[in-house]
Amino acid sequence: MINLAPQALTAKAFAPFGDVIEAGSANSFAINDDLAQRHDDLAFVDTGDEGGRPNVSIFVSKPKPLPVVIDMVERHPLGSQLFVPLGHHPYLVVVTDVAPPFEAADLTTFLITDGRGVNYRKGLWHLPLCPLYEPSRFLVIDRGGPGENCDEFYFPDDMRITIDLDHPAK
Amino acid sequence: MINLAPQALTAKAFAPFGDVIEAGSANSFAINDDLAQRHDDLAFVDTGDEGGRPNVSIFVSKPKPLPVVIDMVERHPLGSQLFVPLGHHPYLVVVTDVAPPFEAADLTTFLITDGRGVNYRKGLWHLPLCPLYEPSRFLVIDRGGPGENCDEFYFPDDMRITIDLDHPAK
Repeated sequence: MINLAPQALTAKAFAPFGDVIEAGSANSFAINDDLAQRHDDLAFVDTGDEGGRPNVSIFVSKPKPLPVVIDMVERHPLGSQLFVPLGHHPYLVVVTDVAPPFEAADLTTFLITDGRGVNYRKGLWHLPLCPLYEPSRFLVIDRGGPGENCDEFYFPDDMRITIDLDHPAK
Repeated sequence: MINLAPQALTAKAFAPFGDVIEAGSANSFAINDDLAQRHDDLAFVDTGDEGGRPNVSIFVSKPKPLPVVIDMVERHPLGSQLFVPLGHHPYLVVVTDVAPPFEAADLTTFLITDGRGVNYRKGLWHLPLCPLYEPSRFLVIDRGGPGENCDEFYFPDDMRITIDLDHPAK
């Protein structure tokens, strides 16, 4: 059994995988007669070149059963996929930027507990949405349109990968 | 003085102006091994034909001072604009689908208190983001790219339009 410790999310740590959706962006300016601050252009919404369009949806999800077992990852080869929690529900992100077949050591994991979102760049291998402890909702922006846009990789049965939620890395 | 009573938001009432971003969409299906329900394609993200792209941003806003006075509306002629509150902060929507110059009777107002979002269709005249009572954050999807994308209309000084938050319409 391999028990992975999730990292804290930072824009720098996540840069190989995509964007962090948070208000701390460098490109920010006052709008609406100074009533509001606009934190601009937080994500590259990549809908590809094959007739794609932005698809705005809401995922209403049950929490992932504990312990979190990573038995598969998936990717969307035709477009990016952005998740923003509608609330501060904790969720887990598991990604890799290497090519399959994967080992446990190829996976990078993040535990997000403060309402920030993530945008997976086009084709990034990732664990499907993984809220923890309670039901939650996410606003999602990904690619709509024709074409086959989901590949899956299943880990071998004898490779049991879990996430150590009690001892996240610093 | 003209004091407008806001309506409750419904997809039907809002249809002339754009989309309501809510999980009750007709097009919904189970995903992620039945862990989640996907409420799909909730909005038309319209970035026009002149080199536009989706711009994902966060607006961090102070509340609008009370009483809410409607002294101007604006529109974005090149693209749609979508707002989803990151939380259940109440906010006010004021829109019109007629052409300027506007009278108070041209305005339709909605009070949203349950976390639902709205998407203004391209070119819709609307009050800039108007959170009530407390600071709040909104995820915004609108159009990035070249071109002049904001028109404004100011009501005459002698036309004082306010919103009656104490007596919303049913």
